[in-house]
Amino acid sequence: MAVYTQVGAEEAAELLARYDVGDLVALKGIAEGVENSNYFVETTRSRYILTLYEKRVDPEDLPFFYALLGHLHAAGCKVPRFIDDRDGNWLQQLCGRPACLIEFLSGFSVSTPTAVQAQATGKALGDMHKALADFTMERPNSLGVAAFRPLAMRCGTDALDSISPGLSERIFAECDYVEAHWPVHLPVAAIHADLFPDNVLILDDRVSGLIDFYFACTDIRGYDLAVTHAAWSFSSDGADYHPEIGRALLSGYEQSHGSDRATRDAFPILARAACLRFLLTRCFDWINTPKSAIVTQKDPLAFLRRLDFYTDRFDKL
Amino acid sequence: MAVYTQVGAEEAAELLARYDVGDLVALKGIAEGVENSNYFVETTRSRYILTLYEKRVDPEDLPFFYALLGHLHAAGCKVPRFIDDRDGNWLQQLCGRPACLIEFLSGFSVSTPTAVQAQATGKALGDMHKALADFTMERPNSLGVAAFRPLAMRCGTDALDSISPGLSERIFAECDYVEAHWPVHLPVAAIHADLFPDNVLILDDRVSGLIDFYFACTDIRGYDLAVTHAAWSFSSDGADYHPEIGRALLSGYEQSHGSDRATRDAFPILARAACLRFLLTRCFDWINTPKSAIVTQKDPLAFLRRLDFYTDRFDKL
Repeated sequence: MAVYTQVGAEEAAELLARYDVGDLVALKGIAEGVENSNYFVETTRSRYILTLYEKRVDPEDLPFFYALLGHLHAAGCKVPRFIDDRDGNWLQQLCGRPACLIEFLSGFSVSTPTAVQAQATGKALGDMHKALADFTMERPNSLGVAAFRPLAMRCGTDALDSISPGLSERIFAECDYVEAHWPVHLPVAAIHADLFPDNVLILDDRVSGLIDFYFACTDIRGYDLAVTHAAWSFSSDGADYHPEIGRALLSGYEQSHGSDRATRDAFPILARAACLRFLLTRCFDWINTPKSAIVTQKDPLAFLRRLDFYTDRFDKL
Repeated sequence: MAVYTQVGAEEAAELLARYDVGDLVALKGIAEGVENSNYFVETTRSRYILTLYEKRVDPEDLPFFYALLGHLHAAGCKVPRFIDDRDGNWLQQLCGRPACLIEFLSGFSVSTPTAVQAQATGKALGDMHKALADFTMERPNSLGVAAFRPLAMRCGTDALDSISPGLSERIFAECDYVEAHWPVHLPVAAIHADLFPDNVLILDDRVSGLIDFYFACTDIRGYDLAVTHAAWSFSSDGADYHPEIGRALLSGYEQSHGSDRATRDAFPILARAACLRFLLTRCFDWINTPKSAIVTQKDPLAFLRRLDFYTDRFDKL
């Protein structure tokens, strides 16, 4: 998490002149998000995030994200809109990169969520799913169930086992299981797919923003709930399940979106798939990122421990 | 430039509760400054920078910086003050690091300064020197003239010559020259010592802030002017001198601080020392920083070219 492309104030001011947003007052590179370059922009009128898309986001996906966030905003969900310039363009070129000006939302991500915050997040997720019921654009989930096995093969058996003995066998067995039992009958819709506490802004125990939609895609709606449950309800090393957080999250979700029997029944498999997804991408990053003091590597095994929990110890909802 | 220590919102909120600054509204890691971790902090009342000091700043130097910035602020200079908490403490511990809450200043750094901006910066530097005439605390310049030769030796002859053939000989000859001709008779005071365009915030062509005082120290006042001249008046690769910028900077400085014959006479040697200082630290970083995609290395030779200019082609002021 760093700034990859340096944007000069002159370049930023020139870009802002195309928009009806006032004049530049402050510009700071911020260290967050997936592998994009992000700047905090203050103008005489308001505050924004200026994002330059680096290699990890495909510019062809940007229209999906633009439409999704516009749809959610129109429906009253708290998400950062892409800003249109005076000519209605929201996608720009800056320093040789695709770039967008995006609404800044107040609030901060909590590292140790409380039950009240988890309940508010579950409700915000449910509200988002309700608002997306009539959103028709589609984006395949490039990190969905069909991607797990190829990703495991790209990691390689030896490299996986070097992270933890026997890990590759466990992962391939889990791929078998998830592929065989995937609940294809469940409703599919646009989902966030990465709603970790990092991606939820909280203010006064209320959700002030859902952010970082760059993994958003079309997949089983209940899978989004399972990802969020796996992301929120454990100690960060995955060793301890926090049942009061898990319950609050689900209760908030059901308060907004209701509950259906089929999703409840499929929840353990959805949650196992969620764990496998993050286990695999973290293993891949672990294996392929040069070790350095600057990039903090996320522990893959934190999601193996969650997987163990959902496999052996999780009661039905 | 990255965030080295992750601060959770809960920890930040707890820290802020010691201060009379309102409640936390937003917290973003920002990618700037020397090797510290910096956060943009917004509260219900104002905006701040939260800095955690990593290895490059010695906590024992912090009282000097605190006093310096307080002195400058009291004198009406636009610099970011350290904020005192309710008990009058400005130095805290956060996540195992010394940490301070610092005023946020609007404005942005320009990458290609205009003459008007250079004039304003020269004047702000002169105003700062005037305000520091009665500042009595001292901090030795750990990157002053006495440090050049040891730093060159730590780089090593072979490593220097691998950057550019003959570089080590040139550097040691320049150390000889600068040591022999250093104008020890010139007035010494607290100086900024690193006033690159990065460290000057501009708004509407006026200076809205001088920032990043972590190299501030006690040294010849005219050396500060020479550092600023070398930092501002060239293309970034050092190949082109921009006389209109250099003249505007000096004119702005003299407008505030006046001009003395002794400093004018010594200016070429002061400027050569300034170039040697940045040439050496950039060589040292070049040699000792692992090559990676994340850290942008600064070109050492950009200051060799400036050194050539001040040695061969610079007219007297």
